[in-house]
Amino acid sequence: MGLSKTFLDPISETKPGKNNLITDVPGITVGHQTLKDDRLQTGVTVISPSEDNIFKQKMPAAVHVINGFGKSMGLVQVEELGTLETPIVLTNTLSAGTAYTTVVKKMLAENHDIGTDTGTVNPVILECNDGVINHIRDLGISEADVKQAFEKANTIFEEGAVGGGTGMCCYDLKGGIGSSSRQIAIDGTTYTMGALVMANYGFMQDLSIYDVTIGPRLKKWQEKEKHKENGSIVTVIATDIPFDTRQLKRIAKRSSVGINRTGAFGGNGSGEITVAFSTANRIAHYPENEIDRQQRITDEFIDRYFRMTTAVVEEAVLSCLVHAQTTDDRKGQKVWSLKDALQHLQKEQYDEKVAWLQEKLGI
Amino acid sequence: MGLSKTFLDPISETKPGKNNLITDVPGITVGHQTLKDDRLQTGVTVISPSEDNIFKQKMPAAVHVINGFGKSMGLVQVEELGTLETPIVLTNTLSAGTAYTTVVKKMLAENHDIGTDTGTVNPVILECNDGVINHIRDLGISEADVKQAFEKANTIFEEGAVGGGTGMCCYDLKGGIGSSSRQIAIDGTTYTMGALVMANYGFMQDLSIYDVTIGPRLKKWQEKEKHKENGSIVTVIATDIPFDTRQLKRIAKRSSVGINRTGAFGGNGSGEITVAFSTANRIAHYPENEIDRQQRITDEFIDRYFRMTTAVVEEAVLSCLVHAQTTDDRKGQKVWSLKDALQHLQKEQYDEKVAWLQEKLGI
Amino acid sequence: MGLSKTFLDPISETKPGKNNLITDVPGITVGHQTLKDDRLQTGVTVISPSEDNIFKQKMPAAVHVINGFGKSMGLVQVEELGTLETPIVLTNTLSAGTAYTTVVKKMLAENHDIGTDTGTVNPVILECNDGVINHIRDLGISEADVKQAFEKANTIFEEGAVGGGTGMCCYDLKGGIGSSSRQIAIDGTTYTMGALVMANYGFMQDLSIYDVTIGPRLKKWQEKEKHKENGSIVTVIATDIPFDTRQLKRIAKRSSVGINRTGAFGGNGSGEITVAFSTANRIAHYPENEIDRQQRITDEFIDRYFRMTTAVVEEAVLSCLVHAQTTDDRKGQKVWSLKDALQHLQKEQYDEKVAWLQEKLGI
Amino acid sequence: MGLSKTFLDPISETKPGKNNLITDVPGITVGHQTLKDDRLQTGVTVISPSEDNIFKQKMPAAVHVINGFGKSMGLVQVEELGTLETPIVLTNTLSAGTAYTTVVKKMLAENHDIGTDTGTVNPVILECNDGVINHIRDLGISEADVKQAFEKANTIFEEGAVGGGTGMCCYDLKGGIGSSSRQIAIDGTTYTMGALVMANYGFMQDLSIYDVTIGPRLKKWQEKEKHKENGSIVTVIATDIPFDTRQLKRIAKRSSVGINRTGAFGGNGSGEITVAFSTANRIAHYPENEIDRQQRITDEFIDRYFRMTTAVVEEAVLSCLVHAQTTDDRKGQKVWSLKDALQHLQKEQYDEKVAWLQEKLGI
Repeated sequence: MGLSKTFLDPISETKPGKNNLITDVPGITVGHQTLKDDRLQTGVTVISPSEDNIFKQKMPAAVHVINGFGKSMGLVQVEELGTLETPIVLTNTLSAGTAYTTVVKKMLAENHDIGTDTGTVNPVILECNDGVINHIRDLGISEADVKQAFEKANTIFEEGAVGGGTGMCCYDLKGGIGSSSRQIAIDGTTYTMGALVMANYGFMQDLSIYDVTIGPRLKKWQEKEKHKENGSIVTVIATDIPFDTRQLKRIAKRSSVGINRTGAFGGNGSGEITVAFSTANRIAHYPENEIDRQQRITDEFIDRYFRMTTAVVEEAVLSCLVHAQTTDDRKGQKVWSLKDALQHLQKEQYDEKVAWLQEKLGI
Repeated sequence: MGLSKTFLDPISETKPGKNNLITDVPGITVGHQTLKDDRLQTGVTVISPSEDNIFKQKMPAAVHVINGFGKSMGLVQVEELGTLETPIVLTNTLSAGTAYTTVVKKMLAENHDIGTDTGTVNPVILECNDGVINHIRDLGISEADVKQAFEKANTIFEEGAVGGGTGMCCYDLKGGIGSSSRQIAIDGTTYTMGALVMANYGFMQDLSIYDVTIGPRLKKWQEKEKHKENGSIVTVIATDIPFDTRQLKRIAKRSSVGINRTGAFGGNGSGEITVAFSTANRIAHYPENEIDRQQRITDEFIDRYFRMTTAVVEEAVLSCLVHAQTTDDRKGQKVWSLKDALQHLQKEQYDEKVAWLQEKLGI
Repeated sequence: MGLSKTFLDPISETKPGKNNLITDVPGITVGHQTLKDDRLQTGVTVISPSEDNIFKQKMPAAVHVINGFGKSMGLVQVEELGTLETPIVLTNTLSAGTAYTTVVKKMLAENHDIGTDTGTVNPVILECNDGVINHIRDLGISEADVKQAFEKANTIFEEGAVGGGTGMCCYDLKGGIGSSSRQIAIDGTTYTMGALVMANYGFMQDLSIYDVTIGPRLKKWQEKEKHKENGSIVTVIATDIPFDTRQLKRIAKRSSVGINRTGAFGGNGSGEITVAFSTANRIAHYPENEIDRQQRITDEFIDRYFRMTTAVVEEAVLSCLVHAQTTDDRKGQKVWSLKDALQHLQKEQYDEKVAWLQEKLGI
Repeated sequence: MGLSKTFLDPISETKPGKNNLITDVPGITVGHQTLKDDRLQTGVTVISPSEDNIFKQKMPAAVHVINGFGKSMGLVQVEELGTLETPIVLTNTLSAGTAYTTVVKKMLAENHDIGTDTGTVNPVILECNDGVINHIRDLGISEADVKQAFEKANTIFEEGAVGGGTGMCCYDLKGGIGSSSRQIAIDGTTYTMGALVMANYGFMQDLSIYDVTIGPRLKKWQEKEKHKENGSIVTVIATDIPFDTRQLKRIAKRSSVGINRTGAFGGNGSGEITVAFSTANRIAHYPENEIDRQQRITDEFIDRYFRMTTAVVEEAVLSCLVHAQTTDDRKGQKVWSLKDALQHLQKEQYDEKVAWLQEKLGI
């Protein structure tokens, strides 16, 4: 449930919600399907944005492509129409087509008008390449797996090497799914912003957490066994703060600051894509009126939300690192958890700052 | 083979290649798989950009989203890296996931390094919604169908209601696949530009061909049976002229002029997406040198290529209308071919301009 | 006042407002300063979006760059914040800096807080190159000229070779400023959309008006005296229909359809930039509340506004051609008005369609 | 000359050029005009990209808008054509029009064909708001001042509160102009990348340098006297590495990582715009051939250049902070230099890490 020990982050000075998860935003649920056997270490994570019919009552949404070396689906329509009309699925790159087809079938089952009395539907699928750990060529994800992830969706969910994050690496350590939330009061009402990342990016040498530069030391240790980063990170930001599409795009852009606060520089091979949506205004598929009214935040006050975005994304990345556990990659080499890696460093040579970091992160 | 009677178009004053098809560009082949039964009128069209391994020797490419109400796949990476690394598949919206998975499998079979020694692969899938004619909810396209389209790829191919275009409507007439080509001499060498469209866009009332405004008359005739446009048009432009990515994007943008020269205005529901690629420079997946050299056209001379683009896309749309035949839609209503529609108009009341148009189009 | 004889355009089937000018949108005024002497044929046109303080009560706005071969100013901030906070000035390319400085001074005079208690201000300056007719190197526009244009702003204004359009060419004929409006009822209330273009684009050979292809005949006549297009067209769309920024961008995109309906193809040298704004929602510079409410049109119904946009921009281009008069260019060659050019064609050889066009356009 | 003590930065592991300035890139010169009196603290900085005629031999260039709350000029055309054809001027926001006009006049003087036998010219003007320190409403910059900056252009230039940076604040400390360079060997040849920033961004509380988090301590000290950030940072990246336009855009994007490595999060009011250009390929204004050849880096190897970009931009920001000196703002309050601020902190309470930072930065 988020970072086991949280604290006021310096950037936003806001506090997490109940579980420090994206599901602290009312209505959001997350489900994982995790596949682990002698060849597969992969899976599916779904983010369901509402309990009701999202196709019939869409949500304002935006996309920001930080680095477009990625195969995510559905972004073009979100960009044009500014709406999200399906759950979001996160999985491995080569299984994105299977995820798309499964979402299509789910949406057809729930909406008998799609393809008959109305148009089609725009599934949003985000992906990273888990090929370092997973035998990705096996195309191990089936439609049944994606369905399972939907069925397991809940407000409480695991982080680390689970679901779509099962086979992911982050800073050449074990990565995966991480999440975090922040709350803020506007005119006496509490609003929540949550992030969920599938983190598979970064070079070990660059890792720096809360100003503790551990990357170079880690790299020295791992030199012989190093993986070549072919990374990516996909980020979903959900909130009940009433942002419109243009504002959600500005919010999505700030995710890159959070992503890079742990030391990365936006590598060529790192497909970095962020989707942001707000649950505050719903957009009817069959609108009754030609003119409607939408609430929205005034841009003049948006800085504190930019700070929250930075904080919540940074902490989601850290939470993924904190929760993931050491595993073997496809070739039998260890991909260390952050916890094990820091313990190794400390055994090798004790460092006060690393000890502080271990304590702070609760590992 | 293109328009049966072609002529110097006013805009570019250039002539078609041998077959007046996109396959006049050396190396390009096109294949269709057409599905027609009592429920399905749909299919798959593939465009193969080269005879050799496109993943290992990529091509400069660009994307332009005219109106992003669409679900095409692979565009984000083309935009970022400026390269095409797979064939392009055109099919119906809800089957795009199946097309993606089939391309993944094909690329894995041809490239044993994908997912093991190198990264993944970026399939480009373009789609329109053929739900007016086809029972699109049946998800009628199988992986075997996509494979069949690949196997049938050839330099000669049919146009009209075939392949991905089987169930498409264009200006509420029968639409589908259309193609055209233009040739030009640069320093004594002949170069070719070709377009292929899957045309499913436009309202009947707006149709105007070569300054003959037939839309309003057609609409009057069809008033009772009108279909609601939920359209889209996807366009592929191929050429052996050496454009770089930025220039290909400028070329792709001009496709919108060709698309609208027949009267459309860019409807809300019309997902209009264009992919342009050049076969002139290849980009090695495993480059030998850190610095290479690329040929390219000088922008100062680019207007004549913009004119070609406009002409070749306009004629591809017309060619689809000319080649498609009257069929029944999903509800048993007629979707008329342009030929039958014009004949109807003429029977109703003879018009010299329409006669001129019929003669010009050879229908 | 717009086209002297207007009629239901085929694309939108809507009617113009009172004066068939952008100023039919309540609150909008337009002013010209025209400079004509033995060296100068240039000027300034200003569009004032409101009678009150636009800096303190900004308007939702959007920009679309059709072809970015242009030097317009202020677009980046409109894109980011989605607001217009100054009047819009249209002038010649090399005088854009002078226009910017004059708007800055005007805004400083009207807002004593700019640069002291609040930030700066974002002037929007649009420009075309009138160098074919005007001695543009003279930098003939002074700050006093820009001020004069502001002082002359009114709901009634001239079209043709006036203000910023004084020295412009369109399809190698005399171009300049053109405007048009359309009205529509929403829930019983009348709303207006207006366009104003400064049209300096297009090759003579491509000109086609209402399906009368006069370009090739004109070109034949003018062959010896032809000007090289170095084009551009800037377009301003104003409306009191409540669009948000994303929707205004979609509206702005459709201007390209209107621009090209007279035959152009988007030439390399033609900087084509459109700014659209809505007067319906105002955005306070000093907002009182963190959350506000904005009205907006439902995208589901947006097609009829896309049609209006296409129509109003096309007619603004035609209106500029209809109102401009034959003049001499910088080298003493004639730049013909459309009226004179059509009369020449008719004298040479009578054509019924051209006669129809002359009657329709009232020239 | 850059940071007085430089060292291998962790991110790129490359070394600075001779002067650790952008002018280490062959051909680049920089000139300042600084205005300081009882009302003005402002100025102009120019970056000249070549000793020859840049208009006749343009350079590949790209723009990235990180946050578009800014009034920079010329970006649209750089984006479309991918070329830089004038020097770049950096000044205060309200004087950007004067800078534009001066560049126009300079280009007209050097190119008698502009506005007669060829088109116009696209000045690139970057700006920040120096209104905290400078009486920006005075519009203190004259055309003569911009000319002076051009005349003073040299390979050696000052950093800190000079030229366009005279009145700028950075993290609520004294900011201004900073520069840095990095060198790299490709196939045995040395190439250089340089950055120059005009830094006026950031909130004091966020400042963190080389993992020393001094922001919160600084903020505590300054609480009573705090300035409201109204920010911005403009960045110019020059290199003789052969990047094409698409690659330069990718390079420009990585500047945001460097900018934020000192703690900022991309504030709403911070207009952040980066221009990148390469001197390696020149693009003739009057090209002789329709097809030419351009060198370019292979994207496969681009990560090390992304690292250099991050490092060179981060160090340019630091260099501006290191070189600027304490001054009084417009209202008589101190805007502290980093040096004085750190000394204050140390006097208040000695901190080993701050001492390390002082030593490292040579202040």
